Amino acid sequence: MSEETSVLRHLEQDFDQAVARYIEFLRIPSISTDPAYAGETRRAGQWLADQLTGLGFKATLHDTPGHPVLVAHHPGPGGDVPHLLYYGHYDVQPADPLELWDHPPFEPTIVEAEHGPRVVARGAVDDKGQVMTFLEAFRGWHRVHGTLPVRITVMIEGEEETGSPSLPDFLKAHHAELAAADVAIVTDTNSWNIDTPAITTLLRGLVYVEVTLKGPSRDLHSGLYGGAAINPLNALTRVLGQLHDDRGQVQIPGFYDDVVEVPKDKLASWKALGFDEARFLGEIGLKTPSGEGGRHVLERLWSRPTCDINGIWGGYTGAGAKTVIASEASAKFSCRLVAAQDPERIVVGIKSFFEARTPPDCRWTIKLFGQSPGISVPSDSPHMGAAKAGLKQVYGTDPVLVGIGGSIPVVGWMQDLLGLESILLGFGLEDDRIHSPNEKFELRCLKNGILSHAAILARMAALKTGKPAK
Amino acid sequence: MSEETSVLRHLEQDFDQAVARYIEFLRIPSISTDPAYAGETRRAGQWLADQLTGLGFKATLHDTPGHPVLVAHHPGPGGDVPHLLYYGHYDVQPADPLELWDHPPFEPTIVEAEHGPRVVARGAVDDKGQVMTFLEAFRGWHRVHGTLPVRITVMIEGEEETGSPSLPDFLKAHHAELAAADVAIVTDTNSWNIDTPAITTLLRGLVYVEVTLKGPSRDLHSGLYGGAAINPLNALTRVLGQLHDDRGQVQIPGFYDDVVEVPKDKLASWKALGFDEARFLGEIGLKTPSGEGGRHVLERLWSRPTCDINGIWGGYTGAGAKTVIASEASAKFSCRLVAAQDPERIVVGIKSFFEARTPPDCRWTIKLFGQSPGISVPSDSPHMGAAKAGLKQVYGTDPVLVGIGGSIPVVGWMQDLLGLESILLGFGLEDDRIHSPNEKFELRCLKNGILSHAAILARMAALKTGKPAK
Repeated sequence: MSEETSVLRHLEQDFDQAVARYIEFLRIPSISTDPAYAGETRRAGQWLADQLTGLGFKATLHDTPGHPVLVAHHPGPGGDVPHLLYYGHYDVQPADPLELWDHPPFEPTIVEAEHGPRVVARGAVDDKGQVMTFLEAFRGWHRVHGTLPVRITVMIEGEEETGSPSLPDFLKAHHAELAAADVAIVTDTNSWNIDTPAITTLLRGLVYVEVTLKGPSRDLHSGLYGGAAINPLNALTRVLGQLHDDRGQVQIPGFYDDVVEVPKDKLASWKALGFDEARFLGEIGLKTPSGEGGRHVLERLWSRPTCDINGIWGGYTGAGAKTVIASEASAKFSCRLVAAQDPERIVVGIKSFFEARTPPDCRWTIKLFGQSPGISVPSDSPHMGAAKAGLKQVYGTDPVLVGIGGSIPVVGWMQDLLGLESILLGFGLEDDRIHSPNEKFELRCLKNGILSHAAILARMAALKTGKPAK
Repeated sequence: MSEETSVLRHLEQDFDQAVARYIEFLRIPSISTDPAYAGETRRAGQWLADQLTGLGFKATLHDTPGHPVLVAHHPGPGGDVPHLLYYGHYDVQPADPLELWDHPPFEPTIVEAEHGPRVVARGAVDDKGQVMTFLEAFRGWHRVHGTLPVRITVMIEGEEETGSPSLPDFLKAHHAELAAADVAIVTDTNSWNIDTPAITTLLRGLVYVEVTLKGPSRDLHSGLYGGAAINPLNALTRVLGQLHDDRGQVQIPGFYDDVVEVPKDKLASWKALGFDEARFLGEIGLKTPSGEGGRHVLERLWSRPTCDINGIWGGYTGAGAKTVIASEASAKFSCRLVAAQDPERIVVGIKSFFEARTPPDCRWTIKLFGQSPGISVPSDSPHMGAAKAGLKQVYGTDPVLVGIGGSIPVVGWMQDLLGLESILLGFGLEDDRIHSPNEKFELRCLKNGILSHAAILARMAALKTGKPAK
């Protein structure tokens, strides 16, 4: 039996215990965006540090101005072996609206469904379930062979869901320790479907903004002032309503200036993937694709920028009626960016969009909650070859190369600040309801993820060592 | 000393005790719109019933499907005397946002200011302070003369701030008991300024609506779905942003069809009032009148219809960033109506406005929270003459006849359902911050209101009895 086969066999046998550990991790409400959960967020990082220490890693939870970053090192078997940097995040999104969960979000529940058992919990897949896939693969190698087949650095942060504000400075401060790796393995993406693995090579970036429009110096009675006093809710909706034109084109100045059209052959390959648009939309109760007309849905999702309002509030929002003109109104919105767009330039465009639409006697407050560029990852490196082969070993089929509409800013920062390319391997499914009530992860995906990481480790160990040519 | 003079003298002497009773009333948090305060709302009604019982009234707190209606009867001195119906409301607006109050809203605080002491509390003027003006006038007559000079019915409701949903049916069910009065006295409006009394003859009506736009069947990750899935927040703001055109004209179909232009002589008399637009707007931090361009501010406030968004909410509104596309978004808004507009027709127009703008795969829920027509009150009846004379007695100056931008639906219902005209006498000031944090009432206004009602009672008693010609 090969080294790899014995590890895979052990992982199959140990899977129930892996699930128990995974559930223990999910019970920690590590909501990074809410200061009330700061202690729980740190506890999730410490839980991982303890796990990795038990597998022969030297693990350190590094304080930052926000939540801590876990860094752990394993020397591997010694000698001139490849060195991989694994990235994930231990923080999760807020669970609201709580009343829409079938089970409490931090009491993980195993539910039988179409693909067998699944776990329902906040963070089930994003990113705790994904982190467990490589953690358990490490455990398998450690248990069976007493070591890992390559040198490994693990970096798991606690601020991904808030835009990773501390991470760029952290990467700069720990450059020597982190940039020594050959390549990064990022596990925060999806399979193509439950039977077909995927490697992601396109990522959208993000600019996240909160705007507040302030008008009258206090709330007003809408009868006594209505018709003569500016209403910030009327004005804000009027301005936000101009973010798109009738064709769904974003109206922020300069928004499309640097957007590159997808080459025809790439577009053709996406169309050949057999993406089921009706099922994709049907699963969320829709029939009609929104956004930019005349473009394939995968193009809209992977290679076109967007602007979505993420939250809005102002005035009276309780039960019944209150005839008030509120003194201010606010909204949060974000733009998804594609590879060539410059986030700084988009921020400038956003500011000028709002400033050009300032009603008389009003003023805007504009807060920036993070920005990151879109990414295009090279798909032809030796490490990429090892990843493809490991996935094929477990799934019996080649992975497909896809894009993703979401943002993983760390991929850009590791490229810029550490000189590291990333291989984006993940095991989620599109219906996992990440960021929504009843987030779930199929146990079959968890197991295939664990086995895949174990198989990829064997193939990485077989590579010629050293950094790939840049 | 005349009967009237001795009452006025007593009221001056008793004023400190009147203030103490007023403060006791203000301590009851009778927030009618919030079900959590239903018990406190009833307690405010019962407090008034107890007060009136102590003044020789037969008082009954009548249950309704919502909050109770207090009705109290006093026979007067006997014989063929006029019969007046006094209206007010004992419920108050919610106090939020609580953090903007200088003192807790239900712990009334006396503060020294420009016009002497004032009371700061939710309901200080709207309408508890106003109700106390006639209650204390009754008390003065009762204490000094053992009875009241006319026959009196008092009707004080607890649902005015929620659109008085139970009142029309209540008026129908108690028609015989209530329609016997000659005229109604409604005390829920303002003086022209602290030295000049006013009688209001124009009132705007109201249609209050809550709309919810539902799109995707669940909240979505804005990266994984943004650009392909409809975003109800984008769509709702886009539709609400079309409620007005560039000139501030409301775009609801048929909105202006029945609006009558104000006659030139009336408009000229309003311009002659010396309304200080700069001060009116400056007091709320503004310089520029909003709404329909090219019209005098009093015209915009008194005789032009409006549409104001009163509240909006959807998606993530907590701290930090959440990259979500919410499955639904909601807003509350209301239209102020003028005399000839038909509320039913406006509701039809509102529904068609939204339905004509339904995004693909989305649906609207439209809830109606009350509707009432605009009102124009006759200004030449004998009772109006008595009211004008009583006000002049106390203030030393004639009252001015004004409009008001707010809605007092009961005036229309008493007209339609009881056949009663209303005289709208109130003692608030425009800077009283009703519906806002730090609502206040000048004690000088409270005292002048009490004295005015007492003086008006004397003049009403001197009128030829019986109903005025209709």
